[in-house]
Amino acid sequence: MKKWMSTLALLLPLGASANEGMWQPHQLPALADELKALGLEMDANSMTDLTAFPMNAVINFGGCTASFVSPKGLLVTNHHCGYGAIQYHSTEEDNILETGFLAKTLADEKLPVPGYKIWITESITPVTDQVVGAVDPALTGAAYAEAIDGRTKALVAECEAEPNTRCDVYNFHHGAQYFLIKELEIKDVRLSYTPALSVGKYGGDIDNWMWPRHTGDFAFFRAYVGPDGKPAEYSEDNVPYTPKRFLKVSAAGLSDGDFVMVAGYPGRTNRYRTAEEVQTYFETVYPQAKVLREELIDLIKTHSEPGSNARIKYEGTLAGLANYAKNYQSMIEGYAKTGMLAAKQQEQDALLAWIRGEGDRAAKYGDVMNQLDRLVAEEWAHAEKDLILGYLRYNQMTNVAQRLYRLANEKQKPDLERESGYQERDWDGIKAGLERMDRRFDAEVDKMILHHLLLRYAALPASEREPVLDRVFGLGAEVDADKLKTKLDSMYATTELTDAEARLAWFDKAPEAFEQSNDPFIRFAVANYDTVMANEKKEKDLAGQLMKVRPDYMAAIIAFNQSQGHPVYADANSSLRLTYGTVGGYSPQDGLVATPFTTMEGLAKKATGVVPFDAPTKQLELIAEGRFGEFADKAVGSVPVNFLSNLDTTGGNSGSPTLNGRAELVGLLFDGVYESITGDWAYNPELNRSIHVDSRYMLWVMKYLDGAENLLDEMEIVD
Amino acid sequence: MKKWMSTLALLLPLGASANEGMWQPHQLPALADELKALGLEMDANSMTDLTAFPMNAVINFGGCTASFVSPKGLLVTNHHCGYGAIQYHSTEEDNILETGFLAKTLADEKLPVPGYKIWITESITPVTDQVVGAVDPALTGAAYAEAIDGRTKALVAECEAEPNTRCDVYNFHHGAQYFLIKELEIKDVRLSYTPALSVGKYGGDIDNWMWPRHTGDFAFFRAYVGPDGKPAEYSEDNVPYTPKRFLKVSAAGLSDGDFVMVAGYPGRTNRYRTAEEVQTYFETVYPQAKVLREELIDLIKTHSEPGSNARIKYEGTLAGLANYAKNYQSMIEGYAKTGMLAAKQQEQDALLAWIRGEGDRAAKYGDVMNQLDRLVAEEWAHAEKDLILGYLRYNQMTNVAQRLYRLANEKQKPDLERESGYQERDWDGIKAGLERMDRRFDAEVDKMILHHLLLRYAALPASEREPVLDRVFGLGAEVDADKLKTKLDSMYATTELTDAEARLAWFDKAPEAFEQSNDPFIRFAVANYDTVMANEKKEKDLAGQLMKVRPDYMAAIIAFNQSQGHPVYADANSSLRLTYGTVGGYSPQDGLVATPFTTMEGLAKKATGVVPFDAPTKQLELIAEGRFGEFADKAVGSVPVNFLSNLDTTGGNSGSPTLNGRAELVGLLFDGVYESITGDWAYNPELNRSIHVDSRYMLWVMKYLDGAENLLDEMEIVD
Repeated sequence: MKKWMSTLALLLPLGASANEGMWQPHQLPALADELKALGLEMDANSMTDLTAFPMNAVINFGGCTASFVSPKGLLVTNHHCGYGAIQYHSTEEDNILETGFLAKTLADEKLPVPGYKIWITESITPVTDQVVGAVDPALTGAAYAEAIDGRTKALVAECEAEPNTRCDVYNFHHGAQYFLIKELEIKDVRLSYTPALSVGKYGGDIDNWMWPRHTGDFAFFRAYVGPDGKPAEYSEDNVPYTPKRFLKVSAAGLSDGDFVMVAGYPGRTNRYRTAEEVQTYFETVYPQAKVLREELIDLIKTHSEPGSNARIKYEGTLAGLANYAKNYQSMIEGYAKTGMLAAKQQEQDALLAWIRGEGDRAAKYGDVMNQLDRLVAEEWAHAEKDLILGYLRYNQMTNVAQRLYRLANEKQKPDLERESGYQERDWDGIKAGLERMDRRFDAEVDKMILHHLLLRYAALPASEREPVLDRVFGLGAEVDADKLKTKLDSMYATTELTDAEARLAWFDKAPEAFEQSNDPFIRFAVANYDTVMANEKKEKDLAGQLMKVRPDYMAAIIAFNQSQGHPVYADANSSLRLTYGTVGGYSPQDGLVATPFTTMEGLAKKATGVVPFDAPTKQLELIAEGRFGEFADKAVGSVPVNFLSNLDTTGGNSGSPTLNGRAELVGLLFDGVYESITGDWAYNPELNRSIHVDSRYMLWVMKYLDGAENLLDEMEIVD
Repeated sequence: MKKWMSTLALLLPLGASANEGMWQPHQLPALADELKALGLEMDANSMTDLTAFPMNAVINFGGCTASFVSPKGLLVTNHHCGYGAIQYHSTEEDNILETGFLAKTLADEKLPVPGYKIWITESITPVTDQVVGAVDPALTGAAYAEAIDGRTKALVAECEAEPNTRCDVYNFHHGAQYFLIKELEIKDVRLSYTPALSVGKYGGDIDNWMWPRHTGDFAFFRAYVGPDGKPAEYSEDNVPYTPKRFLKVSAAGLSDGDFVMVAGYPGRTNRYRTAEEVQTYFETVYPQAKVLREELIDLIKTHSEPGSNARIKYEGTLAGLANYAKNYQSMIEGYAKTGMLAAKQQEQDALLAWIRGEGDRAAKYGDVMNQLDRLVAEEWAHAEKDLILGYLRYNQMTNVAQRLYRLANEKQKPDLERESGYQERDWDGIKAGLERMDRRFDAEVDKMILHHLLLRYAALPASEREPVLDRVFGLGAEVDADKLKTKLDSMYATTELTDAEARLAWFDKAPEAFEQSNDPFIRFAVANYDTVMANEKKEKDLAGQLMKVRPDYMAAIIAFNQSQGHPVYADANSSLRLTYGTVGGYSPQDGLVATPFTTMEGLAKKATGVVPFDAPTKQLELIAEGRFGEFADKAVGSVPVNFLSNLDTTGGNSGSPTLNGRAELVGLLFDGVYESITGDWAYNPELNRSIHVDSRYMLWVMKYLDGAENLLDEMEIVD
């Protein structure tokens, strides 16, 4: 791949269209010339070293990204990434989610949330030969999937023999390449500082995915280790972690057109899906999932009063549901508007024409498209049922019972043969989840979620029904909502799983104990087990088949692009990537231009006093007085609050440090614009924009609004 | 006033803040220097001559504005101004509202809609002395109002002795000045050409008051007169009217920053209201009226299927209801955001401080504010009841019956003593209304409107109830919706007023005939008559008191502004005005800029195929092919569709010719941006923007989409 990269640097014009791509660190040297031309002031080669500056400062924050900003383990991420932890420490009496929180000394920091960990990537090793190369190519279906799975597990186990290490084998290009990624795991992470909700989530769900934006989406945590400097579970004796590297924080910020880059852990993109998959997702999956999410939001709100304990417990769930309901809505709109399907079909036709062309290409790739289409059709044959039953994950009781019984069964096998997620390495996480479930659980709400989803399920055609579900929940051919409600009332009144201690007690029990239990949800888990396993088998079989076909499809795409001098980056897969580009606005619609920076005055103008536009009174007073201090930007005429760039990012990048040409922290990536959401499927240089909180706004809030001098003092702030 | 005008030209900077003002033609010479500096290429003095170019080409289109664009009486206005006429000619079989319509020859033009007239202002004469000066200053209340009314009626009657003339006495500055305006009345106006609804109303209610905008809001009519060149009722022998002046149409258009002006008939502004009035309107009247409108929209939609005859009949009503529901919503939002009340209070405090200052000001104006506040409080003491009963105007049956009985009573008096609207000069209009009522009337919908409003009324406190209403509609202390429905069913089944001939027969009947009638709505009108008259008497009494106080208040404002070198233009009152400024965008929000022009490509991007974004297929094909012909603008890179200016306009300006420095037609004013709606109460140079359809887009649609060569040929198109 390096070869095409250097070709790219010669072929592609600098600027807009060069910004697509979430590059693996080892790809960066090949991009060195372009990076330098755009504004990188350091050696691109130094960025491949994961133990050096700046990559070692970039932290995997479990579905988000964070970065070290002091030699004392202080790290910064998005407020919305720390939301769960902040919420965990909030009560009706001391609602720090609302008020914000600042630990003036280390002793004041909030104790770690059970299971909350962070990871620092230490090495990325190519292991395709040890995975694919070590598996009998004659195997097919589930057998092939299990063989691949076995190989990756073995590599992971070997790697994790080293203490305080999390290892994973990531597949790139849908299985064409495998890399073993080794991360240092830190287990004691404490909350140091968060601004108030009215700063950190200013604009709330209304402004989510939107520009103009004025959100102070940042929060600070601190990593702790044992007195020996090694990761350790929480202890009073633990001391702040000394990271190998940390980022300087820029008080100078950026201007329109400046070079900017983001290092982080983007979650998932779908840039190499087939036209058939695009159509299925946008015409079936997203529309149905959106409706389900909106139904669940309505339902949770109906069954929890605003401000009540129940509502506080579901705030995170509601935020997640709303986030992706809006995401899907935008996906659907963008799909209708941009002609994405036609473009994808055209790309695919070009690929097929190339395959039919000269040389041995037809022999090599000729049938791959048909095979893939057939498997995809099979995958989505029961889309609606799969979606509805998938959303059962929002019901804790069925979920917990099934996970516990599954764990009991998996424990019967040697560790390496256990299903991922149930191995010894996962047990702590499972336990922590069982413990903290109460923080996000209300029996009445939980019951109504189950009630709703079962009614949705029961309205499916007879051919889609599952005998066990019908039997356990007493669902006949005719749906009777009241009868089902009575049934669930009885189940929730009887079950012990609503109690944390009772839940934890099941953690160590053998399958027989489950089979003899009278707990209604345990009984459900036992009754449903064979169906779950059979379905899983079917899925694995399909997955195994896809694991053989998709790498061939990707190989064809890579070869085709190579023939045209185009580089290929891998779809995002939650591994460390770097994306680069420039600060700049865009035109969301004919007749409108989004300018790259928003201002404090704009923030004040949005204020209505009502959530989510309830900026703190003190902040509004400081703005009215023009007290911007050293953080005002001359060109912007104010303290820049948020800014836009053309970087290629996605979920998982949230909290990523936004870096200037010297890799100083100039902001945090926290969102994309509305038009950017379909970018997960196709990057559009005209419309895809990332939204960042400006470091100058962060510093202003810390200094003038929240008086966080202790943190400012320990950071290295540069002009 | 001229004196302050010339002061203004010296004092105020050219540019933004100079654009406020809807100037009377006689004020323009005083603005000549500023107009010239901004870009006017003709003599400002020539614009005071109403019989000369360009003012004589500007037409009062009855609540809208139009302008002559050919020597053969061809006139252009907004599609939404011609909507009623286009709708009148539309049937389910030949729905020209949807398809558009082009008369290829004069013979093909659509015959005039009964009562549809246009007026051309011929003279504006100051008559303050003949009105106020001729009334006994000792008179008060209703007696004063009636005396003023008597004077204006006498002046109007004298003026209208000349045939084919409509005269009106307009009061300016809330009664401080009166002008007699004489208009030539043309009675035969035929539809020549309208683009399809999907062009003329592209974006529909969704885009109403919005930017970006892509609406082809124009339609062409033709004025006809008798063979002698004098206005005449429709006849086959009529010939196209030869206007004294007509406008050339520019194919060159405008650029960002260009000088632009609009001549037209702005309806009503409230720039000189008191803080108490501002508060009452924005906190009571608009919120309640918005809810009533939304209720009526829901109700009409519920009782008329889309595409049915009933729905077609109510499209115009729905559009009107929706238009102002959105308008009020924006008013309410703008009020909350802009601190308009505080600003108004501040202005008022400054005025009061000035009044308390040196000289005889306290003696002259000292008590005016208190008096005005007291009267305003009285005016709005029964706001909710007044609003609900006011919306009864949307019910045709009660409305028609009451108007007919009132007419019969008024006819008992000499013509000059009759209430305005019931004089001989009004009879043709009344008859035409009775005839064409069926086009906008469906008994079932009409019944439900009455049902709803009576239920709303019946929910008011007992002190607000009207005995007659309660008795006629059988409304007890407890409201029974079903019982009321049965009552109305019976009334609608019995009444003859749903029949056009029966309605017209009542036009000539004496009061006694009404009093002996068994028609349920005629009986209601008779029963309710005394209440109506008593309420009217109260209103007149209040109006008479306001007619003495408001001119004093305005005199204080004018004197105060004069003392500061600020000019004063009068609130809009549907008389001919000119406003001028420049083409330009604005920033609707921090982080967002509205650019001044929209493009054909933007129009295509909005297209979804679904109303109101159902651009014609042929148009989308032409855009895809880039077939922009001679109408593309280099800077814009396309045919400009709509553009923004900072002109000070309001409802009634709709359809106004937008003119360049040579008074060539460069577009039509058709709307304001969302932020502009509160502009009726306070002009904001940062946010108030008018929206125009670009002449180049009009010409492109006519030439390339609709093939209207016959019209293009008769217009004078200039580069």
